[in-house]
Amino acid sequence: MQAYVFSNIKEAKPDDFIGKTAIVIDVLRATSTIIAALENGCSSVVPVETVEEARSLQRDGDVLGGERFCRKIAGFHLGNSPLEYASPIVQDKRLVLTTTNGTRGIRKAAKASNVLAGALLNAEACAKSALALDRDIAILCAGTNDSFSLEDGLCAGLLLQLMEDLSGGRVRPNEFGEAMMLACGAVRHRLEETLLASPNGRRLAGLGYRDDVAYCAGTNVSELVPILRDGAMIRF
Amino acid sequence: MQAYVFSNIKEAKPDDFIGKTAIVIDVLRATSTIIAALENGCSSVVPVETVEEARSLQRDGDVLGGERFCRKIAGFHLGNSPLEYASPIVQDKRLVLTTTNGTRGIRKAAKASNVLAGALLNAEACAKSALALDRDIAILCAGTNDSFSLEDGLCAGLLLQLMEDLSGGRVRPNEFGEAMMLACGAVRHRLEETLLASPNGRRLAGLGYRDDVAYCAGTNVSELVPILRDGAMIRF
Repeated sequence: MQAYVFSNIKEAKPDDFIGKTAIVIDVLRATSTIIAALENGCSSVVPVETVEEARSLQRDGDVLGGERFCRKIAGFHLGNSPLEYASPIVQDKRLVLTTTNGTRGIRKAAKASNVLAGALLNAEACAKSALALDRDIAILCAGTNDSFSLEDGLCAGLLLQLMEDLSGGRVRPNEFGEAMMLACGAVRHRLEETLLASPNGRRLAGLGYRDDVAYCAGTNVSELVPILRDGAMIRF
Repeated sequence: MQAYVFSNIKEAKPDDFIGKTAIVIDVLRATSTIIAALENGCSSVVPVETVEEARSLQRDGDVLGGERFCRKIAGFHLGNSPLEYASPIVQDKRLVLTTTNGTRGIRKAAKASNVLAGALLNAEACAKSALALDRDIAILCAGTNDSFSLEDGLCAGLLLQLMEDLSGGRVRPNEFGEAMMLACGAVRHRLEETLLASPNGRRLAGLGYRDDVAYCAGTNVSELVPILRDGAMIRF
């Protein structure tokens, strides 16, 4: 089973995902937020690229969520902080979510046989699900504005290491993936500290979201694997 | 001082290098071979992109070197094995060299204020030279056919770590560079083993060049830093 890691959204083309299991990673914070929302009883998360699209899709009872420049969008119910998505707010609701990188990554990967959302939170569950789907894997690190982000690369490395361990070495990463495995191995036991010291971690902490960064650094704490079905992420 | 690492040749544009010190890395094997040739008394190395260009530039007394598909080119004096470039063959000669990735990388970076050739062999000397030139740094991992190669990324990580140590933390890498520093740190003391296990290392070993891979894994063993002047790499 091949596992190809793309370092950022721009590097990947929609057709690269055809026939594969895609795993989209945006640790800070979109995929962590999607996991948190579904954990808290949200029925589905519709990832959209623009604010206008989010507003036009909104139906009665939907929750509108998302960020621009890390901040909640004017008129939206919620931002992109996983800590905002506590149970009563999203329970049994559909969430329409737009973020700068993560939701764009999910849309980019939409031609895949299956699209999963991966983060540190659900890394082991996501690795198991991807192995169970038994296709070649394309991991898309969402990054930031078409550049590589360290935390997404580290999460890709962790997913590959878990898949390698769980499959008895049956997963063959590309060389970029191998480098991410080595990088993740070096900081595996200090991921929170590494995320807080990363450019995105520092930026979020500076805007008052330090607790988000610490939350998103939680590793293998969720069994929930979001999967794309008919344009929405639901529980696998 | 910023230090931006490009993961492969395609990722970089010629104008990205303007005003900067470029370090081009092709550990297996072009930049290792250029270092070996200059170490062995070669007067200069002219990096060219095509076989035709190499032949058209050849003057009396020049040595023609290079590879396609890792093999010596028909009619050329030498291939791309650093071990071929022993003293008597290249002593006081000009070498016209064409390789699949490394010489193309040097040409791509030609708009830089200075272009250095880096490899594991000369990593510390190269790091010192780049710091002495006192400009922002653009490290170009040549990779293989426009894809990232692990050994070039590890060498970039080593160069960044050395520059950080030598400058007292004055060098600020991009996030891809940070990931390469972590990856290199994980295998710093087993680079030969890592290179031999890498796809390029295995390919070269399979073609009979195992000794080349072991030679190119030698770290900080050369003080020689090739620098581009008037279209040719000479001793800095």
